[in-house]
Amino acid sequence: MDIEEFVSKSLGEWKSMRSGHSLTFQQFEQVLSRVKVKMLSLQDNEVIDLLNKKVHSKSATSPFSVEWSAETDWDENNQIHSGKSILIPIPESESDGEILRSRGYSETVEVYSNYHFLDDKTFVLSTRYEQTLAEERIWFISDNVRCRSSVIRSYPSLGILQTSFASEVRIADIS
Amino acid sequence: MDIEEFVSKSLGEWKSMRSGHSLTFQQFEQVLSRVKVKMLSLQDNEVIDLLNKKVHSKSATSPFSVEWSAETDWDENNQIHSGKSILIPIPESESDGEILRSRGYSETVEVYSNYHFLDDKTFVLSTRYEQTLAEERIWFISDNVRCRSSVIRSYPSLGILQTSFASEVRIADIS
Repeated sequence: MDIEEFVSKSLGEWKSMRSGHSLTFQQFEQVLSRVKVKMLSLQDNEVIDLLNKKVHSKSATSPFSVEWSAETDWDENNQIHSGKSILIPIPESESDGEILRSRGYSETVEVYSNYHFLDDKTFVLSTRYEQTLAEERIWFISDNVRCRSSVIRSYPSLGILQTSFASEVRIADIS
Repeated sequence: MDIEEFVSKSLGEWKSMRSGHSLTFQQFEQVLSRVKVKMLSLQDNEVIDLLNKKVHSKSATSPFSVEWSAETDWDENNQIHSGKSILIPIPESESDGEILRSRGYSETVEVYSNYHFLDDKTFVLSTRYEQTLAEERIWFISDNVRCRSSVIRSYPSLGILQTSFASEVRIADIS
């Protein structure tokens, strides 16, 4: 598995069931959402803008966007949360590299993540934010179903703040 | 990581938060439970009995028991579910082998599971039952916190019936 293959397998619209676990408070969160993963081009303005802001753009490849719209049971107003992030992989080798993100996972800032693939093709993404460290894992359990887990730690204490797990089913291809 | 080290890291009493996802019905399940993992001896009667029922006992090592008592929100009576399984690893190599279980995960029968470790030490357990295939993964995110995910498929159609994810915090050692 390399990053191009991984991005290509991820394209489309996904229906996501996500459970969050707050370990300290023993609280569960449940979220149903839609996630759209679209291929971008290195010639797209939003990709060029993001690359220009950062120093090294050496071997950027397979840029893509992720859009989500979620309905969570933690929000008293049952409000829809939605957002979009642009992601630009910059491979170091076939199995690892960096990803430049216009918006992070545990903090909504531009950020570099490190990624690598395990020997069973699980994709592991590690990100250091200002006040948190996040590790996300994504693995396909069939062509159209993938699992995604995350661990968020406080930084620099490394205490575990939250874990989460999502089961995602592709409901449509996006051309 | 070999199986002895994995069993040794798993001993103790754990507080578990588990979320189940039924993909077909988009239903969430939430379970809080206690899990006790205890070391057994190859001389224990329950271990000898289980080994005697099966053919090959060549290189059994590090037998252990897992006891759980859970309170699930799916059960209308909020009934406590509890149980116990005895597990006997039979390594083939440092990173893989079989585990003989007195009681399986998705079906409560005696069963052999196959296990292997990924390159990041994630423990992967695969079991074929009469009507289901189960894959469980366990990975430690700190000395006292581990994650556990599972995928249950119908057999032989391989349709995905349920996924689950547990976050487990060790609350006591058991000597």
